[in-house]
Formats: sequence, C-alpha cells, structure tokens
Amino acid sequence: MPIVQIDLLEGRTIAEKRLLVEKVTQAIIESIGAPAESVSIIIRDMLKENFAKSGTLAMDK
Amino acid sequence: MPIVQIDLLEGRTIAEKRLLVEKVTQAIIESIGAPAESVSIIIRDMLKENFAKSGTLAMDK
Amino acid sequence: MPIVQIDLLEGRTIAEKRLLVEKVTQAIIESIGAPAESVSIIIRDMLKENFAKSGTLAMDK
Amino acid sequence: MPIVQIDLLEGRTIAEKRLLVEKVTQAIIESIGAPAESVSIIIRDMLKENFAKSGTLAMDK
Amino acid sequence: MPIVQIDLLEGRTIAEKRLLVEKVTQAIIESIGAPAESVSIIIRDMLKENFAKSGTLAMDK
Amino acid sequence: MPIVQIDLLEGRTIAEKRLLVEKVTQAIIESIGAPAESVSIIIRDMLKENFAKSGTLAMDK
Repeated sequence: MPIVQIDLLEGRTIAEKRLLVEKVTQAIIESIGAPAESVSIIIRDMLKENFAKSGTLAMDK
Repeated sequence: MPIVQIDLLEGRTIAEKRLLVEKVTQAIIESIGAPAESVSIIIRDMLKENFAKSGTLAMDK
Repeated sequence: MPIVQIDLLEGRTIAEKRLLVEKVTQAIIESIGAPAESVSIIIRDMLKENFAKSGTLAMDK
Repeated sequence: MPIVQIDLLEGRTIAEKRLLVEKVTQAIIESIGAPAESVSIIIRDMLKENFAKSGTLAMDK
Repeated sequence: MPIVQIDLLEGRTIAEKRLLVEKVTQAIIESIGAPAESVSIIIRDMLKENFAKSGTLAMDK
Repeated sequence: MPIVQIDLLEGRTIAEKRLLVEKVTQAIIESIGAPAESVSIIIRDMLKENFAKSGTLAMDK
C-alpha cells in the first residue's frame, strides 16, 4: 500500500513523468518488496510562485 | 478539527464535488461525533498525467 | 483512485476509526461513483501538542 | 529540514505570496532555530470549488 | 482558511512548538490578511529514520 | 526541489528504509535529472488501524 506524493517544480514533460513513475515504482519494489500493483504515485506540479527555499520564491531566483 | 484531503482524478463536476463534501462531512459527524463546523475538506484534482498505479500513468491506461 | 488523508486529534478508538473508514468510503461511492476498491484512506493521529488553531496549541485550550 | 505546506484559497497575488514565504520562514527561524536554507515552503492554491467547511464548498458561501 | 502542515525532525520541545504556531500564525495574518481564527496548523514529528536528503537518512548523518 | 512523501504500513526495518531512500532518490535523478542534494524524502509509518482500502482497515484484513 505505499502511497507516494511527489512535488516537482513545473516544466516536466509527460515523457519525464512517465519515466519517473516507472523508476520510482521499481525502486519501491526492489527496496521493500511491495507488489507493483500496490504502489500509487501522485505528482504535484508546483508553479514557481508556489515554492520557496530560504524564504525566497523559486520565481525570484 | 478533522482535516480531510481528497485527491481525485480530474473530470468531476461541481455538482459531484458539492455532494462529495456534504456526504463526507456527514460521514465524519456520524462516525466520530465531530461537529460539522470543525470539518475542513480540501479536494485536489489530479491530471491524468499526474497519477500512476503499478508504475503506469493514468493517461496511459 | 480517490486517495483520502484524514488528520484527527488523538484519542479515537479503533471502533470509531472502523466506522469512519466505512462511512467515508460509502460517502465517496455515493457521491462520485468511484468503486469501493479504488478508495484508499490514510488516518493520521495528531497529538494535542501538534495541532493549533488561531495560533494556540490544542493542548493549551 | 522543516518542510511546510500551505493550502490557501485562490486569489493571492505574487506580492502576497512573496511576503508570506519571507515571514513564515522568519517565524520558523525565530521559534525553533532552524537555519533559513533548511526551510522549504510549498504553497497550494485551492479553487473555491475545492475547499469546504461544514460540508459546504467555499464557492457556495 | 489557510491550512498549514509542518514536518519537523523529532526533538522539538512543547515550548518550541507553542512559539512556532504563534509566530507562523502571526506571519500569515501579517502577509495575507487572513483572520487568526481561520489558520489551522498541523505539526508532524519525523523520526530521524524517516527523513532523507540526498538519498541518506537523517539518522545516518 | 523534488519533495517526496511516502506512506507505508508499519513494520519496515531501518535497513529497508535506508535502501528505499537510496533507490527512490536514484530513480528521481535518473528520470528527471534533479541533483541528488535537491531531493527530500519523508517516510510516514502507518499503523494498521490507520489505513483502509475498500472501506476496511488494514488491521481487519
């Protein structure tokens, strides 16, 4: 039942997301032995105005 | 103070969301006795390119 | 594929949680027509030192 | 390593978000002594059809 | 209706958490003008075996 | 800046978690080209009384 949430800065292509969920699912199978069909992944695209590090928005860097 | 987050695949109508929050709030009141005004619900719409099961994006199924 | 996360203040019994997930799942089925087996629910127990409203911890109220 | 997620109703300007992340980061530094560069903040904009209190969508209030 | 979730490494005292929620709530009021009573904050304590940066658990650093 | 949250049923060993964060971080690097030091992972252990599928708690299966 692993449920994975991944927040990414906007701009990823569908091809990158497709590869991401394949590889992350594989990583979970290999490390903890969860069956593939039990792995759910939610990707969240963050606008650059919606992420900050050190108190500064990503859009201002 | 129950705080509920619900991730749904895109495509739900406002009428469906209206019914969803009514019924989920009612379910919480009836099961744990929380007062209605203490229940907050956040709905998150997931694009089909942003959800995967078994390592495959929902858009590829 | 609805994925539900519910944050609750500590102190709920297992019987209450059992009822909660039954009723919330039913509410989702009835409102948006999702099949029962697609509904995942995560409950998170919050210590009273870990929830605040209006800037005051629940333990101080 | 504090990781902060803030859900807000839609409609905040970039200037407000810029101020929000500055001030929340400062609040964390002052209260728990975390270094600024360790603080990550994710803002999530909620549509008014995606937030409910007391079983009623924000768009219906 | 701002809903804030803060993940922190374990070890914070109640006094630090009390100050944290006071100051973060104040930061939100000052930056976006939300009323104090609308601000909910959830703190999540992370065990050092449950947080990783650069692929390494915090307990191994 | 990928921020990953992984909810797992309780019972994973530290060795499994160590492998999990190594492999998931590697999967993200390989798929989207994010630098290792930008990847944060939060693991959340779920009690079997705190996860449900199809309306039934994991502890009752």
